[in-house]
Amino acid sequence: MSITEHRIRGDHRGQLVAIEGLQDIPFEVKRVFYIYGTQPDVPRGQHSHHQTRQYLIAVNGSCKVTLDDGKQKVTYDLNKPNIGLLQDALIWGAMHDFTVDCVLLVMASEHYDEADYIRDYDDFLKVVGA
Amino acid sequence: MSITEHRIRGDHRGQLVAIEGLQDIPFEVKRVFYIYGTQPDVPRGQHSHHQTRQYLIAVNGSCKVTLDDGKQKVTYDLNKPNIGLLQDALIWGAMHDFTVDCVLLVMASEHYDEADYIRDYDDFLKVVGA
Repeated sequence: MSITEHRIRGDHRGQLVAIEGLQDIPFEVKRVFYIYGTQPDVPRGQHSHHQTRQYLIAVNGSCKVTLDDGKQKVTYDLNKPNIGLLQDALIWGAMHDFTVDCVLLVMASEHYDEADYIRDYDDFLKVVGA
Repeated sequence: MSITEHRIRGDHRGQLVAIEGLQDIPFEVKRVFYIYGTQPDVPRGQHSHHQTRQYLIAVNGSCKVTLDDGKQKVTYDLNKPNIGLLQDALIWGAMHDFTVDCVLLVMASEHYDEADYIRDYDDFLKVVGA
Protein backbone atom coordinates (compact mmCIF):
# COMPACT_ATOMS: atom_id res chain seq x y z
CA MET A 1 0.00 0.00 0.00
CA SER A 2 1.71 3.13 -1.11
CA ILE A 3 1.02 6.47 -2.77
CA THR A 4 3.08 7.52 -5.77
CA GLU A 5 3.13 11.00 -7.25
CA HIS A 6 3.64 10.58 -11.00
CA ARG A 7 5.44 13.01 -13.21
CA ILE A 8 3.13 15.37 -15.13
CA ARG A 9 4.37 15.92 -18.67
CA GLY A 10 2.87 19.36 -19.07
CA ASP A 11 3.38 21.96 -21.77
CA HIS A 12 1.32 24.65 -23.49
CA ARG A 13 -1.02 21.96 -24.83
CA GLY A 14 -2.03 20.63 -21.42
CA GLN A 15 -1.04 17.79 -19.11
CA LEU A 16 -0.24 14.14 -19.68
CA VAL A 17 0.49 11.39 -17.15
CA ALA A 18 1.78 8.01 -18.33
CA ILE A 19 1.84 4.73 -16.43
CA GLU A 20 4.01 2.00 -17.90
CA GLY A 21 3.04 -1.52 -16.84
CA LEU A 22 5.81 -3.30 -14.87
CA GLN A 23 7.77 -0.04 -14.72
CA ASP A 24 5.67 2.61 -12.99
CA ILE A 25 3.50 -0.02 -11.34
CA PRO A 26 4.59 -3.50 -10.23
CA PHE A 27 2.40 -5.55 -12.59
CA GLU A 28 1.23 -5.92 -16.16
CA VAL A 29 -2.17 -4.39 -16.79
CA LYS A 30 -4.70 -7.05 -17.76
CA ARG A 31 -7.80 -4.99 -17.12
CA VAL A 32 -8.65 -1.31 -16.95
CA PHE A 33 -11.86 -0.03 -15.45
CA TYR A 34 -13.22 3.29 -14.33
CA ILE A 35 -15.94 4.35 -11.96
CA TYR A 36 -17.94 7.54 -12.45
CA GLY A 37 -21.31 9.07 -11.63
CA THR A 38 -20.95 7.91 -8.04
CA GLN A 39 -23.06 9.55 -5.37
CA PRO A 40 -21.07 11.39 -2.68
CA ASP A 41 -22.69 9.41 0.12
CA VAL A 42 -22.33 5.99 -1.50
CA PRO A 43 -19.16 3.99 -0.86
CA ARG A 44 -17.85 1.49 -3.42
CA GLY A 45 -15.41 -1.36 -3.38
CA GLN A 46 -15.71 -2.98 0.02
CA HIS A 47 -14.08 -6.22 -0.99
CA SER A 48 -10.67 -7.81 -1.26
CA HIS A 49 -8.98 -10.04 -3.82
CA HIS A 50 -7.04 -13.26 -3.44
CA GLN A 51 -4.66 -12.45 -6.31
CA THR A 52 -5.58 -9.20 -8.05
CA ARG A 53 -3.47 -6.14 -7.39
CA GLN A 54 -4.98 -2.78 -8.31
CA TYR A 55 -3.64 0.67 -8.99
CA LEU A 56 -6.08 3.53 -8.41
CA ILE A 57 -5.99 7.09 -9.70
CA ALA A 58 -8.73 9.73 -9.48
CA VAL A 59 -8.14 11.17 -12.95
CA ASN A 60 -10.95 13.69 -12.43
CA GLY A 61 -12.44 15.02 -9.21
CA SER A 62 -11.45 13.24 -6.02
CA CYS A 63 -12.32 10.43 -3.65
CA LYS A 64 -10.91 8.68 -0.61
CA VAL A 65 -9.80 5.09 -0.40
CA THR A 66 -9.50 3.19 2.86
CA LEU A 67 -7.21 0.17 2.74
CA ASP A 68 -7.31 -2.40 5.51
CA ASP A 69 -4.96 -5.35 6.02
CA GLY A 70 -7.14 -6.79 8.76
CA LYS A 71 -5.10 -5.12 11.51
CA GLN A 72 -4.86 -1.51 10.44
CA LYS A 73 -6.93 0.84 8.29
CA VAL A 74 -5.35 3.74 6.43
CA THR A 75 -7.33 6.30 4.44
CA TYR A 76 -5.78 7.94 1.40
CA ASP A 77 -6.91 11.12 -0.35
CA LEU A 78 -6.90 10.69 -4.10
CA ASN A 79 -7.23 14.38 -4.84
CA LYS A 80 -4.79 15.00 -7.71
CA PRO A 81 -4.82 13.35 -11.14
CA ASN A 82 -1.19 12.26 -10.82
CA ILE A 83 -1.49 10.46 -7.48
CA GLY A 84 -1.67 6.67 -7.69
CA LEU A 85 -2.43 4.20 -4.93
CA LEU A 86 -1.39 0.56 -5.00
CA GLN A 87 -3.87 -1.86 -3.46
CA ASP A 88 -2.19 -5.21 -2.98
CA ALA A 89 -3.92 -8.55 -2.97
CA LEU A 90 -5.49 -9.52 0.36
CA ILE A 91 -6.16 -5.92 1.27
CA TRP A 92 -9.72 -4.85 1.95
CA GLY A 93 -10.53 -1.67 0.03
CA ALA A 94 -13.35 0.84 0.27
CA MET A 95 -13.73 3.90 -1.93
CA HIS A 96 -15.79 6.74 -0.51
CA ASP A 97 -16.36 10.52 -0.45
CA PHE A 98 -16.54 10.70 -4.22
CA THR A 99 -16.99 14.18 -5.65
CA VAL A 100 -19.80 14.24 -8.22
CA ASP A 101 -17.24 14.70 -11.02
CA CYS A 102 -14.90 11.95 -9.81
CA VAL A 103 -13.60 9.46 -12.36
CA LEU A 104 -11.66 6.75 -10.56
CA LEU A 105 -9.36 4.87 -12.93
CA VAL A 106 -8.28 1.39 -11.85
CA MET A 107 -5.62 -0.75 -13.48
CA ALA A 108 -5.77 -4.40 -12.44
CA SER A 109 -3.18 -7.18 -12.59
CA GLU A 110 -5.71 -9.89 -13.50
CA HIS A 111 -8.70 -10.35 -15.71
CA TYR A 112 -12.10 -10.33 -14.03
CA ASP A 113 -12.76 -13.53 -12.13
CA GLU A 114 -15.55 -13.62 -9.57
CA ALA A 115 -13.68 -16.43 -7.72
CA ASP A 116 -10.88 -13.96 -6.95
CA TYR A 117 -13.19 -11.72 -4.91
CA ILE A 118 -13.60 -11.87 -1.14
CA ARG A 119 -16.85 -10.01 -0.54
CA ASP A 120 -17.49 -10.85 3.10
CA TYR A 121 -15.41 -8.99 5.69
CA ASP A 122 -15.42 -11.87 8.19
CA ASP A 123 -14.20 -14.21 5.45
CA PHE A 124 -11.47 -11.69 4.67
CA LEU A 125 -10.32 -11.62 8.31
CA LYS A 126 -10.13 -15.42 8.32
CA VAL A 127 -8.12 -15.50 5.06
CA VAL A 128 -5.56 -12.98 6.32
CA GLY A 129 -5.43 -14.61 9.74
CA ALA A 130 -6.27 -11.39 11.54
CA MET B 1 -10.38 2.22 -36.86
CA SER B 2 -13.65 1.57 -35.19
CA ILE B 3 -15.88 2.89 -32.44
CA THR B 4 -17.12 0.53 -29.77
CA GLU B 5 -19.84 1.30 -27.26
CA HIS B 6 -18.94 -0.51 -24.06
CA ARG B 7 -21.40 -1.88 -21.57
CA ILE B 8 -22.00 0.37 -18.57
CA ARG B 9 -22.31 -1.63 -15.38
CA GLY B 10 -24.54 0.83 -13.57
CA ASP B 11 -26.46 0.49 -10.36
CA HIS B 12 -27.51 2.71 -7.44
CA ARG B 13 -23.83 3.30 -6.60
CA GLY B 14 -22.92 4.80 -10.00
CA GLN B 15 -21.38 3.62 -13.26
CA LEU B 16 -18.47 1.35 -14.08
CA VAL B 17 -16.94 0.51 -17.47
CA ALA B 18 -14.37 -2.29 -17.76
CA ILE B 19 -11.94 -2.95 -20.59
CA GLU B 20 -10.25 -6.33 -20.57
CA GLY B 21 -6.99 -6.47 -22.49
CA LEU B 22 -7.11 -8.91 -25.47
CA GLN B 23 -10.85 -9.33 -24.95
CA ASP B 24 -12.55 -5.94 -25.23
CA ILE B 25 -9.61 -4.52 -27.18
CA PRO B 26 -7.32 -6.41 -29.57
CA PHE B 27 -4.08 -6.06 -27.61
CA GLU B 28 -2.48 -6.35 -24.19
CA VAL B 29 -2.14 -3.03 -22.41
CA LYS B 30 1.52 -2.20 -21.86
CA ARG B 31 1.02 1.50 -21.15
CA VAL B 32 -1.82 3.69 -19.93
CA PHE B 33 -1.78 7.45 -20.23
CA TYR B 34 -4.27 10.23 -19.89
CA ILE B 35 -4.43 13.76 -21.17
CA TYR B 36 -6.19 16.55 -19.27
CA GLY B 37 -6.13 20.31 -18.82
CA THR B 38 -6.04 20.73 -22.59
CA GLN B 39 -7.06 24.07 -24.07
CA PRO B 40 -10.12 23.92 -26.37
CA ASP B 41 -8.21 25.50 -29.26
CA VAL B 42 -5.08 23.36 -28.96
CA PRO B 43 -4.92 20.06 -30.85
CA ARG B 44 -2.84 17.15 -29.57
CA GLY B 45 -1.50 13.95 -31.06
CA GLN B 46 -0.65 14.73 -34.67
CA HIS B 47 1.62 11.75 -35.11
CA SER B 48 1.50 8.12 -36.11
CA HIS B 49 3.19 4.98 -34.82
CA HIS B 50 5.02 2.20 -36.63
CA GLN B 51 3.82 -0.50 -34.21
CA THR B 52 1.79 0.95 -31.36
CA ARG B 53 -1.97 0.52 -31.37
CA GLN B 54 -3.99 2.77 -29.13
CA TYR B 55 -7.45 2.70 -27.65
CA LEU B 56 -8.94 6.08 -26.75
CA ILE B 57 -11.79 6.93 -24.40
CA ALA B 58 -12.88 10.36 -23.18
CA VAL B 59 -13.69 9.26 -19.63
CA ASN B 60 -14.70 12.83 -18.70
CA GLY B 61 -15.83 15.68 -20.94
CA SER B 62 -15.39 15.18 -24.66
CA CYS B 63 -13.05 15.67 -27.58
CA LYS B 64 -12.82 14.78 -31.25
CA VAL B 65 -10.26 12.53 -32.86
CA THR B 66 -9.41 12.62 -36.55
CA LEU B 67 -7.83 9.45 -37.89
CA ASP B 68 -6.11 9.48 -41.26
CA ASP B 69 -4.75 6.48 -43.17
CA GLY B 70 -3.07 8.74 -45.74
CA LYS B 71 -6.02 8.48 -48.12
CA GLN B 72 -9.03 9.30 -46.01
CA LYS B 73 -9.68 11.27 -42.84
CA VAL B 74 -12.51 10.39 -40.50
CA THR B 75 -13.42 12.42 -37.42
CA TYR B 76 -14.93 10.70 -34.39
CA ASP B 77 -16.80 12.32 -31.52
CA LEU B 78 -15.65 10.91 -28.21
CA ASN B 79 -18.55 12.35 -26.25
CA LYS B 80 -19.60 9.55 -23.91
CA PRO B 81 -17.45 7.82 -21.27
CA ASN B 82 -18.24 4.37 -22.66
CA ILE B 83 -17.22 5.03 -26.27
CA GLY B 84 -13.83 3.68 -27.29
CA LEU B 85 -11.91 4.32 -30.49
CA LEU B 86 -9.21 2.00 -31.83
CA GLN B 87 -6.31 3.76 -33.53
CA ASP B 88 -4.28 1.19 -35.41
CA ALA B 89 -0.58 1.43 -36.16
CA LEU B 90 0.28 3.51 -39.23
CA ILE B 91 -2.72 5.76 -38.74
CA TRP B 92 -2.16 9.48 -38.28
CA GLY B 93 -4.15 10.74 -35.31
CA ALA B 94 -5.08 14.21 -34.13
CA MET B 95 -7.10 14.98 -31.01
CA HIS B 96 -8.92 18.30 -30.98
CA ASP B 97 -11.94 20.23 -29.67
CA PHE B 98 -11.25 19.23 -26.10
CA THR B 99 -13.75 20.47 -23.55
CA VAL B 100 -11.99 22.07 -20.59
CA ASP B 101 -12.98 19.13 -18.39
CA CYS B 102 -11.92 16.46 -20.89
CA VAL B 103 -9.86 13.54 -19.62
CA LEU B 104 -8.76 11.43 -22.56
CA LEU B 105 -7.68 7.96 -21.47
CA VAL B 106 -5.38 6.06 -23.84
CA MET B 107 -4.39 2.40 -23.57
CA ALA B 108 -1.37 1.50 -25.69
CA SER B 109 -0.13 -1.83 -27.00
CA GLU B 110 3.55 -0.98 -26.51
CA HIS B 111 5.78 0.73 -24.01
CA TYR B 112 6.96 4.23 -24.86
CA ASP B 113 9.65 4.22 -27.52
CA GLU B 114 10.47 7.44 -29.35
CA ALA B 115 11.67 5.37 -32.36
CA ASP B 116 8.13 4.13 -32.83
CA TYR B 117 6.79 7.64 -33.50
CA ILE B 118 6.32 9.17 -36.94
CA ARG B 119 6.08 12.87 -36.20
CA ASP B 120 6.33 14.31 -39.71
CA TYR B 121 3.25 14.05 -41.92
CA ASP B 122 5.23 13.78 -45.18
CA ASP B 123 7.28 10.94 -43.66
CA PHE B 124 4.00 9.29 -42.67
CA LEU B 125 2.66 9.51 -46.24
CA LYS B 126 5.85 7.89 -47.54
CA VAL B 127 5.69 5.08 -44.99
CA VAL B 128 2.08 4.21 -45.82
CA GLY B 129 2.75 4.60 -49.55
CA ALA B 130 -0.02 7.15 -49.99
